[in-house]
Amino acid sequence: MTQQIKVGIVGYGNLGRGVEKAIQQNPDMNVIAVFTRREPQGVIATVPVLHISEAKKYIGEIDVMILCGGSATDLPEQGPYFAKGFNTVDSYDTHALIPEYFASVDAVAQEAGHVSIISTGWDPGLFSLNRMLAEAILPEGKEYTFWGRGVSQGHSDAIRRVEGVTHGVQYTIPVEEVVAKVREGLNPQLSIRDKHLRECFVVAQAGADQSRIEQEIKQMPNYFADYDTIVHFISEEELKKNHSAMPHGGTVLRSGTTGDNNTQIIEFGLKLDSNPEFTASVLVAYARAAYKLAGQGQVGAKTVFDIPFGLLSPKSAEQLRKELL
Amino acid sequence: MTQQIKVGIVGYGNLGRGVEKAIQQNPDMNVIAVFTRREPQGVIATVPVLHISEAKKYIGEIDVMILCGGSATDLPEQGPYFAKGFNTVDSYDTHALIPEYFASVDAVAQEAGHVSIISTGWDPGLFSLNRMLAEAILPEGKEYTFWGRGVSQGHSDAIRRVEGVTHGVQYTIPVEEVVAKVREGLNPQLSIRDKHLRECFVVAQAGADQSRIEQEIKQMPNYFADYDTIVHFISEEELKKNHSAMPHGGTVLRSGTTGDNNTQIIEFGLKLDSNPEFTASVLVAYARAAYKLAGQGQVGAKTVFDIPFGLLSPKSAEQLRKELL
Repeated sequence: MTQQIKVGIVGYGNLGRGVEKAIQQNPDMNVIAVFTRREPQGVIATVPVLHISEAKKYIGEIDVMILCGGSATDLPEQGPYFAKGFNTVDSYDTHALIPEYFASVDAVAQEAGHVSIISTGWDPGLFSLNRMLAEAILPEGKEYTFWGRGVSQGHSDAIRRVEGVTHGVQYTIPVEEVVAKVREGLNPQLSIRDKHLRECFVVAQAGADQSRIEQEIKQMPNYFADYDTIVHFISEEELKKNHSAMPHGGTVLRSGTTGDNNTQIIEFGLKLDSNPEFTASVLVAYARAAYKLAGQGQVGAKTVFDIPFGLLSPKSAEQLRKELL
Repeated sequence: MTQQIKVGIVGYGNLGRGVEKAIQQNPDMNVIAVFTRREPQGVIATVPVLHISEAKKYIGEIDVMILCGGSATDLPEQGPYFAKGFNTVDSYDTHALIPEYFASVDAVAQEAGHVSIISTGWDPGLFSLNRMLAEAILPEGKEYTFWGRGVSQGHSDAIRRVEGVTHGVQYTIPVEEVVAKVREGLNPQLSIRDKHLRECFVVAQAGADQSRIEQEIKQMPNYFADYDTIVHFISEEELKKNHSAMPHGGTVLRSGTTGDNNTQIIEFGLKLDSNPEFTASVLVAYARAAYKLAGQGQVGAKTVFDIPFGLLSPKSAEQLRKELL
């Protein structure tokens, strides 16, 4: 190894901490500092913690900034801001606004001469890659994505907004019999309700009307009304003990036809004990690619569709051909 | 669409016929001709059939030659030969000799200014991509590949070489309980015998000693001796009726660990009614990529590790970001 890739981490929530841990598994990379909006003295990490306003002093010192903020408000601002001074990688995941986000980061990165890989992670990210690959190989076919079993932060937040609820965790669960039908090549037509169940673990205030809470959850538009929803009331202790982890995963399936009506099925699946740690591991691999692309003189915003897989690996092209092809 | 990609097919066995059918599903591509070593008059196809010696007249007329010959003797000769006059794509699959094959094709393609994508298909090819991706994301982990249920041509050929056997078909079958253990993240240590069964359907000559044939198959070194092998004797009619298809598939799993011992599982699987038609569909998508890479001014031999997925699709980068990210 010639020289380690010097990485900065912007944001130190679950994802930022996941990146810190992931880089410990990658000896070709090294974290220079974490940048946070909080008071840095209050943040405990294995690497230096600095206020986000200090980041600009590291221009030229950090090869890639890994942006670990959220898509709602952090990244739309931080993506273009950091692309000015650094190569960047992020996991921007508001599907509908990706073209707009791409354009805003691309303009800055092109002008500054940096590489910014946006919307990595697993969905968007690895799932997008597999949807695209399968469509390109099997143009006549049907695509299915199932998510879970896993915790949805958005739905858990929605539960917690119901009056009388103090804590809540929601699991998205694919309907296994339906997944099995897709795997058999039966190409079922599926409604929203057919594909996923929603299971909620709820802690209610003492004396709250549980049947009112249950109805309110089940009838909540967008979040639950279109699904079969199961609501369990449990104690706060039980919730903390059994529902504090952040598992997730899912499956992208394409069922296609070639030649004389031969069914061909491509499946990609993830089963994750820790959603943020896995997303962080994907970000780290794409940070390596950003570094290599920048070394080739490339500039501008990129997505997972633009990146040859070989750049994700610490191994040389020759090694990859010998060991992994 | 501006202009169709003009494709030539070299070799017209199962794979070449699969390419012809696959291109009918891709309106941005068009087959100009099939090139065969046989007497062209005897070959029936939906496109012009020419003797392979005519191919050089098509230099400048064909954008990409899809090489559909075998890896043992055809491709080592045809890969470099066609790289001289054309961009090429092939499914060279002798894993151990890939570096050597790459070097021989690369030398010619570099000098001639063409792009040659070697060793596409599904293994090597899509399985290699997934092994590499999963290793890059989860450096601490263990990789498992299971093949089947599917017909192995090599093992079927081996059965047919046993004295007294007139026909034979061999299915490679992954041991499902073992696959399930890997999916659960148990990281089992597996011997060759643990992972796959071999099931043989054999037609014996009238009067042949079936128990001798069965023993000879089961004890055959390399092919069967290290596996649990099941041998069924059936009639020729039954073999033709039930065992003429060429299904295959398999699963690449990586079971890794991140952070505080969280298990993360990445799985890629194929379930194929027709192995040659699917391989052909992969070749066709990579032919599109070869055409686009050549248009960018790239030259030399490439593998699946060097190709951004976006180039496999007929859609523009903008469309892909909008529709598939």
